[in-house]
Amino acid sequence: MGWLDEGALFNQISAFLAEDLGRGDITTQACIKRNASARGRFLAKEPMVIAGLEAAEAVFATLDSQQQLEAFVSDGEEVSAGKVIARTNGFADVLLAGERLALNLLQRLSGIATLTRQFVAAVEGTGAVIVDTRKTVPGLRMLEKYAVQAGGGRNHRFGLDDGVLIKDNHIALAGGVGAAVKRAKESVGHLHKIEVEVSRERDLREAVEEGADILLLDNLTPEETARFVRLARELAPAVLLESSGGITLENVRAYAEAGVNLVSVGALTHSARAMDISFKIQPG
Amino acid sequence: MGWLDEGALFNQISAFLAEDLGRGDITTQACIKRNASARGRFLAKEPMVIAGLEAAEAVFATLDSQQQLEAFVSDGEEVSAGKVIARTNGFADVLLAGERLALNLLQRLSGIATLTRQFVAAVEGTGAVIVDTRKTVPGLRMLEKYAVQAGGGRNHRFGLDDGVLIKDNHIALAGGVGAAVKRAKESVGHLHKIEVEVSRERDLREAVEEGADILLLDNLTPEETARFVRLARELAPAVLLESSGGITLENVRAYAEAGVNLVSVGALTHSARAMDISFKIQPG
Amino acid sequence: MGWLDEGALFNQISAFLAEDLGRGDITTQACIKRNASARGRFLAKEPMVIAGLEAAEAVFATLDSQQQLEAFVSDGEEVSAGKVIARTNGFADVLLAGERLALNLLQRLSGIATLTRQFVAAVEGTGAVIVDTRKTVPGLRMLEKYAVQAGGGRNHRFGLDDGVLIKDNHIALAGGVGAAVKRAKESVGHLHKIEVEVSRERDLREAVEEGADILLLDNLTPEETARFVRLARELAPAVLLESSGGITLENVRAYAEAGVNLVSVGALTHSARAMDISFKIQPG
Amino acid sequence: MGWLDEGALFNQISAFLAEDLGRGDITTQACIKRNASARGRFLAKEPMVIAGLEAAEAVFATLDSQQQLEAFVSDGEEVSAGKVIARTNGFADVLLAGERLALNLLQRLSGIATLTRQFVAAVEGTGAVIVDTRKTVPGLRMLEKYAVQAGGGRNHRFGLDDGVLIKDNHIALAGGVGAAVKRAKESVGHLHKIEVEVSRERDLREAVEEGADILLLDNLTPEETARFVRLARELAPAVLLESSGGITLENVRAYAEAGVNLVSVGALTHSARAMDISFKIQPG
Amino acid sequence: MGWLDEGALFNQISAFLAEDLGRGDITTQACIKRNASARGRFLAKEPMVIAGLEAAEAVFATLDSQQQLEAFVSDGEEVSAGKVIARTNGFADVLLAGERLALNLLQRLSGIATLTRQFVAAVEGTGAVIVDTRKTVPGLRMLEKYAVQAGGGRNHRFGLDDGVLIKDNHIALAGGVGAAVKRAKESVGHLHKIEVEVSRERDLREAVEEGADILLLDNLTPEETARFVRLARELAPAVLLESSGGITLENVRAYAEAGVNLVSVGALTHSARAMDISFKIQPG
Amino acid sequence: MGWLDEGALFNQISAFLAEDLGRGDITTQACIKRNASARGRFLAKEPMVIAGLEAAEAVFATLDSQQQLEAFVSDGEEVSAGKVIARTNGFADVLLAGERLALNLLQRLSGIATLTRQFVAAVEGTGAVIVDTRKTVPGLRMLEKYAVQAGGGRNHRFGLDDGVLIKDNHIALAGGVGAAVKRAKESVGHLHKIEVEVSRERDLREAVEEGADILLLDNLTPEETARFVRLARELAPAVLLESSGGITLENVRAYAEAGVNLVSVGALTHSARAMDISFKIQPG
Repeated sequence: MGWLDEGALFNQISAFLAEDLGRGDITTQACIKRNASARGRFLAKEPMVIAGLEAAEAVFATLDSQQQLEAFVSDGEEVSAGKVIARTNGFADVLLAGERLALNLLQRLSGIATLTRQFVAAVEGTGAVIVDTRKTVPGLRMLEKYAVQAGGGRNHRFGLDDGVLIKDNHIALAGGVGAAVKRAKESVGHLHKIEVEVSRERDLREAVEEGADILLLDNLTPEETARFVRLARELAPAVLLESSGGITLENVRAYAEAGVNLVSVGALTHSARAMDISFKIQPG
Repeated sequence: MGWLDEGALFNQISAFLAEDLGRGDITTQACIKRNASARGRFLAKEPMVIAGLEAAEAVFATLDSQQQLEAFVSDGEEVSAGKVIARTNGFADVLLAGERLALNLLQRLSGIATLTRQFVAAVEGTGAVIVDTRKTVPGLRMLEKYAVQAGGGRNHRFGLDDGVLIKDNHIALAGGVGAAVKRAKESVGHLHKIEVEVSRERDLREAVEEGADILLLDNLTPEETARFVRLARELAPAVLLESSGGITLENVRAYAEAGVNLVSVGALTHSARAMDISFKIQPG
Repeated sequence: MGWLDEGALFNQISAFLAEDLGRGDITTQACIKRNASARGRFLAKEPMVIAGLEAAEAVFATLDSQQQLEAFVSDGEEVSAGKVIARTNGFADVLLAGERLALNLLQRLSGIATLTRQFVAAVEGTGAVIVDTRKTVPGLRMLEKYAVQAGGGRNHRFGLDDGVLIKDNHIALAGGVGAAVKRAKESVGHLHKIEVEVSRERDLREAVEEGADILLLDNLTPEETARFVRLARELAPAVLLESSGGITLENVRAYAEAGVNLVSVGALTHSARAMDISFKIQPG
Repeated sequence: MGWLDEGALFNQISAFLAEDLGRGDITTQACIKRNASARGRFLAKEPMVIAGLEAAEAVFATLDSQQQLEAFVSDGEEVSAGKVIARTNGFADVLLAGERLALNLLQRLSGIATLTRQFVAAVEGTGAVIVDTRKTVPGLRMLEKYAVQAGGGRNHRFGLDDGVLIKDNHIALAGGVGAAVKRAKESVGHLHKIEVEVSRERDLREAVEEGADILLLDNLTPEETARFVRLARELAPAVLLESSGGITLENVRAYAEAGVNLVSVGALTHSARAMDISFKIQPG
Repeated sequence: MGWLDEGALFNQISAFLAEDLGRGDITTQACIKRNASARGRFLAKEPMVIAGLEAAEAVFATLDSQQQLEAFVSDGEEVSAGKVIARTNGFADVLLAGERLALNLLQRLSGIATLTRQFVAAVEGTGAVIVDTRKTVPGLRMLEKYAVQAGGGRNHRFGLDDGVLIKDNHIALAGGVGAAVKRAKESVGHLHKIEVEVSRERDLREAVEEGADILLLDNLTPEETARFVRLARELAPAVLLESSGGITLENVRAYAEAGVNLVSVGALTHSARAMDISFKIQPG
Repeated sequence: MGWLDEGALFNQISAFLAEDLGRGDITTQACIKRNASARGRFLAKEPMVIAGLEAAEAVFATLDSQQQLEAFVSDGEEVSAGKVIARTNGFADVLLAGERLALNLLQRLSGIATLTRQFVAAVEGTGAVIVDTRKTVPGLRMLEKYAVQAGGGRNHRFGLDDGVLIKDNHIALAGGVGAAVKRAKESVGHLHKIEVEVSRERDLREAVEEGADILLLDNLTPEETARFVRLARELAPAVLLESSGGITLENVRAYAEAGVNLVSVGALTHSARAMDISFKIQPG
């Protein structure tokens, strides 16, 4: 048992395989001899940070408990174009049945890890931490957040139940930043900190006064961010500060240099493109 | 019951909500009054083709069977920036619990529909049809293929069980194009056509000889494609032809003009970026 | 992984065992010593074609992962009365808990295989192929279609999603054979052929004109069938022809000799009787 | 809530529909207009006892919660050939999607009810009760036992957990009838009676001596049965007697007249043939 | 396969672990090195009868299929304070993830076994049997009834489907004891006995007359019980008698001495307190 | 949607009903007329704090979606012996099928609420808050934690994933309090506080130095607790303090008066006894 729950991973992989296989792979049944053996290799076709090897292995192991994947790199490692990432051998029908899903996972997760690595590199030396968001593909959150880690980022909330983050919509309904934070302090469990979005100086002051632990500076310019950071540090030296909204590879360093502790980037998961990886099978 | 199976959609939405909600939305529990009512609006922040309204509605209906979404556009419609796409009202906690998932679905599916529409526009007048692939996000295939339709594309196979497509890996294992097609013709059910990948003239000839119904021209240049098309039409006037591999918005028209019937584009689903859509909630 | 998906088979067997075992086998708990060992033999009590050995083995393996079935014949083999089909040994309570389900499966699947073999024998030499229908027992379709194969038949559609077959009810709703085939040609995926039921000459002509790939000749006499076959071959030499409706062991050869390619027989699955097989247990 | 658990029935029907529909009815999608309405009628094509109307209704209601079935007869009623059993109207795609499953259920369950009714009629006036066995199709036990009731029979055990029946295999393992009954009396819950198979006079005596409540006379001739009945009544006037094994419509009355209380008939469920019922759809 | 169905046990344990682990043990992830090994010991902190070792072992085996529990006692054994009950070693994170659930099960089940043993001891020599009720914690019935057995008690019904027990509410609805028993005799399966609650002499007479097999004497004093026992034995020597209602460790012997065969005690399961057991982990 | 997730509650109730009903309530089927109507009343037989009315209502609503429970009190309210808590009417078989489960839930949850209320009363005026633990019955955690709230207590962690609590076993494996807290501060998400168990002054100093947010004072006497509280307040005025271990109704006030913020009490859930509540049914 590691960071990813194995049982849950296998259940997910089974559901994903069912989606692709339906009643079975009729092409392979029609043109490949039963019990033929084969070997396959995953090949990086462009430079990338790898993520998802464990998931890819689980694809084949779910189809045939005997089958293993021999990986030549580890999740989080950077590879250049042409690198053989992993190989596997076993029954030809198992390789053909798992090919597409294994690739879909590896390509997407490596895409996320690669993009994350670029953001992390862009803020190097500033002390700011790149974190993800809940803007993940429905059903893939654990895997996508794992890929963010592989890329060098850190994880924000995994769901609505494991952290308090009071955003604009809550504030509108609660009647203001101060009222929202105050109510949250009274009723939330003693192990949870409270983060609140502030977009005006007055809100920042209210939030700090009511004891917010973390301030989310959403959709500000880097300059506004710097100003808010100075004010917040003055009022509450221990408060944590997070930037979010419209963060790109181009502007992320400006936010980091404005002095925030964290920069959260939705694009890590909602707009990463798939990396180009191929899977070639030969008679084994 | 329409194209999407309602029961299956609701089961999926439930699983997606469970992923995000875990034991419940502790922020809302902490700072919003129970039974408060609210209204929310989905707003397009950039031009796009909409897809996923039914899925977004299912999110709220799963949380509260009474709640409905009033849509101002239909899936497949193009909207400009600033357009209010839909609105809903009900319990504040339901709106807050469903917000992120509804957005994640709408943003991704509209991203796919928008990209598909661009590819469809690029081949307008050529007679070629844009089709998708199985390079979808695991677990979202039905929804993503629905978004391709909303964008004006058509669907290739839904899974390995509903069509015969003999690709390079099958050919390598079966001992050649001719052998593979021959074996498939003998054993596949009488309702299925046979598509086979050909990358050399010799393979094209073998495939046609053995009675393949559709030829997949993978990773050829537009010029090679045109040459293969001429040869195929000569040998078998009724055969269908499909281009795939490395198709971009820039080169798709060249492939279409080479005379193929279908162009399949993996990027429609594996590399679409999320559209920018916001959800604003006000006390109701 | 073979033709039957092992994971799916084990899930089904588990559900079937739960149906029979409920909270446990109270007779065995009441009168057999715990951990007693035993051996059992399956015995054919009449001549039959065997099918379902893998399913029977799965019953015992689901109850106790160590337990195996040693089969003395293979699925699809004909045996005479008195033949010991298979034996197994292990814990007495496992044998007693699995006995009824293993027999129910073996007896029914062998019944289907046996009846199929009789139909196949009846058309020997005519070139016609015996195929099944969707008239299977709900929940057992994959196993029953497997038994048809074991008997020497071939499979028609596995479900409504893996083949286009336009029948009388579709035609009534679509406004005629021609209209139905035309619409289907326009909208169905490019990998699917189109089969349509025709019961009048006019319909046959319309179907062929619109490009139907296969014609289903339903509820015709052998003589009418022969006439339709001649007409169809004249109009479209490549079209496939299938007879169905009221096919019995007595009349099946007449249909085959009328020249159709396929004869589909609902009775293979909806009216096969269970074969007589016993399971005798002795102290082990 | 009636005899059949509604929730369980709907879960089963959903699974059965999934088996048949897979990713959806591609024929109907291809050739019928969306939202077209239609009406359908179930017609008996031969005389039969009806069973399964509730299950057939559940098929359509599972596809579309609004849709209802108007039945013109009740389960357990005899109808002649030509009788319209029920009708329904609604969306055409719902009728077409549910047609096959509804028929498969109605035809099989009516087959069981009809055969049961024949056995019941054959023993009329003798006082003997016709009961079923666990020789049911895996997964359909509750529905099949319901059909036996509709036919006028009564139900034996529903599973291994709701009754004690010591059979030949238990006796072989327990070391004799007497030992088996004795152990069972000591350890089974106080609410359960004990039934035991006896095939020799000596066994009958042992069983009665140890206090068995019911004796199963398996695979005896009617004459042997009569002799065993006399002996048993002499030794234990209150003991119940059940005949089983090789019971047919031809010989069942002889067993009943031999004086047993119950005759159990495996053929009711393992070898009933499907009744001929059609479903005709018209534009609605 | 023993008394507890292993597959069902593992499914339950998985659900229980999911309840406690959610998305994972964030404390252990945060402060323990990955792959650290450890050993743990379960220690009885007070005298008790042990129950639940198999369940505790299943907790760790579910988390890591390699991990085993070495037990130093057996379920049903009495231990004194200070006894090391079992030990296990493996990955530190597995021990920490399973600790609480293993303890919650062991502590509760041992609590039930211990209390049951006290009741059993209290009636020693009287011939009366202590039985449980359906007053178990929802979801834990099989495990709790197992613990009752470990404590030396016997099990009453496992659910509403495995025994007929006509209680006050049934009698009120059926129109009296006699009517209820009579109807039950006519319609219940032939393998079931009939138990009925009687609280007045007249009811007892009616019940016996209609052939009830067991009488439940509910909420009587020991003296009334003795009187009812005498009357029942006179009218029907073979009838079984059960006391229930308000039975405590103080008065249970009086009921047993009144001559009943069974005493059922709800407190065994509904009011047992958890035994004090600790689990200490050391680096392994 | 409230504090308890309705969908999850209904799923749980369904599973609990399946546990009790199995294949159905054979007593009611045997002796009550189908479709008979009835009314039932829940009656408190001793003083108590009520909890679980929503769960009890869900039991009947799961059996029959029409059926409702009219409650005369609210969860969290104190009632005296003799109070009619709620009534319901509907089909007799629904009332009888749900009776035991509804009672099992109401009796246990009210037991927890009642015991919690006693602990809350015992610390009145001290400012200390009574909180629960994870020592809940497996499978019932959400319901039991709800009952603690109804009793006036507050909830500690819901699972291992929603709060960091470093206990003795973690410390032993991490190599000391300081090392454990330090590592946790570095790696845990920014929204989580860190609580750590301290049992020696030196540990308390280390914990505070490394920035622990909350200290758990486990298994100390009230006097030791007071001393630790003074020291902690001196070193870190903002730190929260929690007592746990061996807390009883007799000593809880002493701990509260020692100055801690929270007292956690395992007995609230692991050793509450069921309250005495009856359900009487009359013909309706």
